[in-house]
Amino acid sequence: MSGRRILILGEGFSHDPHYGKTMRGIIRYGPDPVVAILDSARAGESHEGIPIVGSVDDALPYGPTAAVVGVATQGGRFPPAWRELLKRCLEAGLDVESGLHEFVSDDPELVALAARHGATLRDLRKPPEGLNVPTGANLEVDATIVLTVGSDCAIGKKTVAVELDLEARRRGLASVFVPTGQTGIAIAGWGIAVDAVVSDFLAGAAERLVVEGVERGGKLLFVEGQGSLVHPMYSGVTMGLIHGAAPHLFVLCHRAGDVEIEGCPGHPIPPLAELVELHERISLPARKAPVACLAINTAALEGDDEARAAIAAESDAAGLPADDPVRFGAGFLLDTILSHIAP
Amino acid sequence: MSGRRILILGEGFSHDPHYGKTMRGIIRYGPDPVVAILDSARAGESHEGIPIVGSVDDALPYGPTAAVVGVATQGGRFPPAWRELLKRCLEAGLDVESGLHEFVSDDPELVALAARHGATLRDLRKPPEGLNVPTGANLEVDATIVLTVGSDCAIGKKTVAVELDLEARRRGLASVFVPTGQTGIAIAGWGIAVDAVVSDFLAGAAERLVVEGVERGGKLLFVEGQGSLVHPMYSGVTMGLIHGAAPHLFVLCHRAGDVEIEGCPGHPIPPLAELVELHERISLPARKAPVACLAINTAALEGDDEARAAIAAESDAAGLPADDPVRFGAGFLLDTILSHIAP
Repeated sequence: MSGRRILILGEGFSHDPHYGKTMRGIIRYGPDPVVAILDSARAGESHEGIPIVGSVDDALPYGPTAAVVGVATQGGRFPPAWRELLKRCLEAGLDVESGLHEFVSDDPELVALAARHGATLRDLRKPPEGLNVPTGANLEVDATIVLTVGSDCAIGKKTVAVELDLEARRRGLASVFVPTGQTGIAIAGWGIAVDAVVSDFLAGAAERLVVEGVERGGKLLFVEGQGSLVHPMYSGVTMGLIHGAAPHLFVLCHRAGDVEIEGCPGHPIPPLAELVELHERISLPARKAPVACLAINTAALEGDDEARAAIAAESDAAGLPADDPVRFGAGFLLDTILSHIAP
Repeated sequence: MSGRRILILGEGFSHDPHYGKTMRGIIRYGPDPVVAILDSARAGESHEGIPIVGSVDDALPYGPTAAVVGVATQGGRFPPAWRELLKRCLEAGLDVESGLHEFVSDDPELVALAARHGATLRDLRKPPEGLNVPTGANLEVDATIVLTVGSDCAIGKKTVAVELDLEARRRGLASVFVPTGQTGIAIAGWGIAVDAVVSDFLAGAAERLVVEGVERGGKLLFVEGQGSLVHPMYSGVTMGLIHGAAPHLFVLCHRAGDVEIEGCPGHPIPPLAELVELHERISLPARKAPVACLAINTAALEGDDEARAAIAAESDAAGLPADDPVRFGAGFLLDTILSHIAP
């Protein structure tokens, strides 16, 4: 529609389910076609039918207009080799879009290069001006707010929110997906990366997002969750988002079989039933929110029967309806959510 | 010692127990003498023996060398009238130190004025460079970490940590107060205002602080808490600090009689027993932390008997030892904490 054609920069990460999650989100749900993926170690291969190339120059025949940083490094900084990559994109006249904490639009060399070649630099994670603490508007919005939360990072909180929103809109409901992170922003074209705002304004940023979700016509908001209450690195972001978005309902996301936080040995994931209770206890006393259902990521399980058995086991253990909305569709989880909303 | 003599800028707020808490902290615990307080509405009065003046010029006869912004406005921005005040301080050659989110050292006009008059600008809340996510060092430090948490903001979490540290050092223990906010930093001369860091790096900043506490010789660290898990605005900061500081023990602070978050009508404070359990549940699964005791702020109660009765009531309700360490000394609470530490 926009004429934008995307080259995804996945150098060194395109194979990685964790750090390459931005790439996967944009390919699956983004509004513009991805014409190539850059990852020199995998040049010549393809990913979901998209050619993987070894250099920016090798990508140019596919006609990209914008290069999107398709990785989410820990700490959000660029590996040093990336600077040359970004410079080459700008020299070729490609716009550059990044979701890291290190802002391309604050880098004098890249800014000068972009100006010289008529390219634009966009930082998906750069917070808007004028953020502040919440005003209480989050408790006043005329919509049902559903927040996806999880037992870990990178297990599908954004995907579950997107799939629920797509299913709700297919049914004609006034649903809006509310993006709170760089990939969600790349997909939806608006939003705030709440993990990049000053900590004091976390809840205020989340409040602003649900207010905007209603302004965009939402009567049902599916808010992208971040991190996990039990993640030793990111729980502050999770907490501020929970209180700032002030959801009426949670959807708890979990990857079947996980018992430890990925990349954090010695940090166990508590049993799901305990995690359900923790979320309900921690929700705003002024808006106590139940966990409506579980979204179980079964991508690692090969057969559908195996996946169904894993979902049933989690459902039984937590005493809540459960499904894998990516594998089996979001219909059942949406039914469950709607059953919580008074007609 | 340093020859610094402080003028506190409290314009419009010096009477306010909430927004004037920076002023009170610096007067009570700061290393340098406060020679005057500026608050035009109260000119001619005094506060704890310190003269209150109506203008910067009226303060000059008291010989200040530095003006410290003694207020903590919601959202951390300067009321517009303050710009003239700050400019007049710089013109008079006073250094200016501020703990608001709006940084004086980023303001071109103030920077130019400071340079012209040989004054320095210091932002207590400006985060250091190079913050990142935690590394796991918080679980490795060779010290007992005690974090003050609370039922609300501005009820004494910093003061309790300072008093416990003072009492521990009086007893010859290798104790260090770990500052996590602007007033604590003004008092101790080091620290990071964790509410001003990018949300993703909250826990990493807290980790860095406990590591530095040990480098400063602490075997017993009293970490200044921030916000409250049940505060609708600041809970994200509280959560990130809890997981990043990875305390072995909590001290739960509460102001006697409070049942609602100050300034947030409709946001109740849960019963203390529930709040105790919430903190214990939310502590890192890899380092489950009990609440060792309650610090009850009885400043609003006139008689000591009344204060003792209020403390006893909270102690009974929560089933934990309790005291007001400001009113009755920190000895009893320190004894309780030490009893949790294996010899």
